[in-house]
Amino acid sequence: MDFNAPLPLRSGATLPPYWLAYETYGELNAERSNAVLVCHALNASHHVAGVYADQPQNRGWWDNMIGPGKPVDTDRFFVIGINNPGSCFGSTGPMHAHPESGEIYGSDFPVMTVEDWVDAQARLLDALGIERLAAVMGGSLGGMQALSWTLQYPERVRNAAVIASAPNLSAENIAFNEVARRAIVTDPDFHDGHFHRHGVVPRRGLRIARMIGHITYLSDAAMNEKFGRELREAVAGSAGGYRFSTRDIEFQIESYLRHQGEKFSDYFDANTYLLITRALDYFDPARAHGGNLAAAFAAARARYLLVSFSTDWRFSPARSREMVEALLENRREVTYAEIDAPHGHDAFLLDDPRYLGAVRAWFDRIARGLA
Amino acid sequence: MDFNAPLPLRSGATLPPYWLAYETYGELNAERSNAVLVCHALNASHHVAGVYADQPQNRGWWDNMIGPGKPVDTDRFFVIGINNPGSCFGSTGPMHAHPESGEIYGSDFPVMTVEDWVDAQARLLDALGIERLAAVMGGSLGGMQALSWTLQYPERVRNAAVIASAPNLSAENIAFNEVARRAIVTDPDFHDGHFHRHGVVPRRGLRIARMIGHITYLSDAAMNEKFGRELREAVAGSAGGYRFSTRDIEFQIESYLRHQGEKFSDYFDANTYLLITRALDYFDPARAHGGNLAAAFAAARARYLLVSFSTDWRFSPARSREMVEALLENRREVTYAEIDAPHGHDAFLLDDPRYLGAVRAWFDRIARGLA
Repeated sequence: MDFNAPLPLRSGATLPPYWLAYETYGELNAERSNAVLVCHALNASHHVAGVYADQPQNRGWWDNMIGPGKPVDTDRFFVIGINNPGSCFGSTGPMHAHPESGEIYGSDFPVMTVEDWVDAQARLLDALGIERLAAVMGGSLGGMQALSWTLQYPERVRNAAVIASAPNLSAENIAFNEVARRAIVTDPDFHDGHFHRHGVVPRRGLRIARMIGHITYLSDAAMNEKFGRELREAVAGSAGGYRFSTRDIEFQIESYLRHQGEKFSDYFDANTYLLITRALDYFDPARAHGGNLAAAFAAARARYLLVSFSTDWRFSPARSREMVEALLENRREVTYAEIDAPHGHDAFLLDDPRYLGAVRAWFDRIARGLA
Repeated sequence: MDFNAPLPLRSGATLPPYWLAYETYGELNAERSNAVLVCHALNASHHVAGVYADQPQNRGWWDNMIGPGKPVDTDRFFVIGINNPGSCFGSTGPMHAHPESGEIYGSDFPVMTVEDWVDAQARLLDALGIERLAAVMGGSLGGMQALSWTLQYPERVRNAAVIASAPNLSAENIAFNEVARRAIVTDPDFHDGHFHRHGVVPRRGLRIARMIGHITYLSDAAMNEKFGRELREAVAGSAGGYRFSTRDIEFQIESYLRHQGEKFSDYFDANTYLLITRALDYFDPARAHGGNLAAAFAAARARYLLVSFSTDWRFSPARSREMVEALLENRREVTYAEIDAPHGHDAFLLDDPRYLGAVRAWFDRIARGLA
């Protein structure tokens, strides 16, 4: 959908007229009261559920969660998947041209915050004629957007599901983001963010960034379970089966990471990576309240579902409990599920029956309230 | 010290004649029974204690541990610090020339294992006329060498201190090493490991490698305590004080990491980084015993001190407990201290009184046995 009015941003800059990609599932009811907005994290899009007729392999990234009869039941809810501006999966982003100059944005694309994305999402709802959401939901960075919705537009959202998320990044989280960004920016093919002019892509940096990311998405235990110290191919007659090479692949985990890095560098935009990790770094609703999260949540009116996963060391259960406590201090209604799952941060995308069951029960209650 | 006999390596290759840098502190007693060998980790050398007369700032890396009246008391022990071959702090390494061809080794330097280093250290003891060590000690990768000493040369070592170490790397440990290696190897200035021929250094890759390393040396809590979400310099009048830049430094943690990366790339050799991280990956004494650590420890004759630190997520206490249990199954005498310290892996280099006290008590008992 085209948006012709520029979007004012927290940085003081404005986003020139832009295009937003979105998808919907199910039907908006007559009262326009059953809309659920789904917010994405770093590497996802508006394509949250189902498949396209001509692309049967391209399943939505949260298809186990959203669809007919699923925890977020599209027989009852009108679900909206949106791609944020600055991303590289359909909405206007750094790979597109500035509407006036016609120049590819590259690194000139304006820096956006979680709050800016929420503003853009609110404009989409305006355009769709939806005044109030039954729920907003998201995992990880998407959870930050869901949380921010309830603070920026408290009257426009009845319920918010904030999954595997945090009220801000820790120093370690920022550190991992920064290393990934430095790998991209110092890649000679980055060309100050205007690599498109040179017909290249900073693939080396993107590969490293993705490898680092993948390590933080998985738990140590899950990695040991899946890969352990297994060699890709033991060399017969060699001590320990090793190749004794610092550059060849020895261990399965190396093979996995290189493959993930390679795939990612095929399709992900380097400037998008910088922008999205920076939005993560910046998000910190308590900042304007001297670090007091309960004070930051004073505006909240929604009911909340928070979910965390025991082995998620990127956004640990302790971070979710901080949010739960600050919401309870504001006498908000909070459902909190701490799921004992071995998979690390990635668990929020996986099929854990207790997790999916908790989300289903919470949405069932919302659906009953619609009747 | 020059070693004219080539050293056979686990890979099947041999290390041509080489030079070993070492330092000693204190005096070898008449019985030659009070020698303590100190093994280093990734970024350290033979300079373990004290200062040089002409370099008063260049304090040994374990100077809080080793010296007159210190936990490892050089008034009683003859302490030997050694630099492993392949390192870049004095002993023959990739920056040196092959003795026959005269060519700088670069990436042709042979791949070495922990076991190979221990062999080289044993040769140094031969040359010094020391048949048996009172103790061998090390932290992290140095702890692996100390452990390996007791398995390769059980009759030559009475006591072994294995600090903040592990019986092998986990998949996650290997993953971090591999990302760092890929950052170095894919730096265009790496030139297949022969960057010296081009008069360049793969500084981009070294910086990234060091930044990743530093994240894993610190605990999340220590990073939050030291840096938190503090900005380097808040911008007056800007939302949150942010600069809204993906490439400028915003947070103190970014400044710290970039500084560490920059310093490291000034002095550390890229090929050494590859070699040492690979030695870490390969170390796995249980591998030849079907993963059975107790079986691998059957040869052990030493008495052990193991120390771990509660917030060390690189080599967690659980990894030390694996070693303790496998040693106890072999009826070895083991002292184990699990220190509740906030600093993460780096704690083994810091001044924690309980930690230093535990080491002091253990060495005091060894000293009494010498009398």
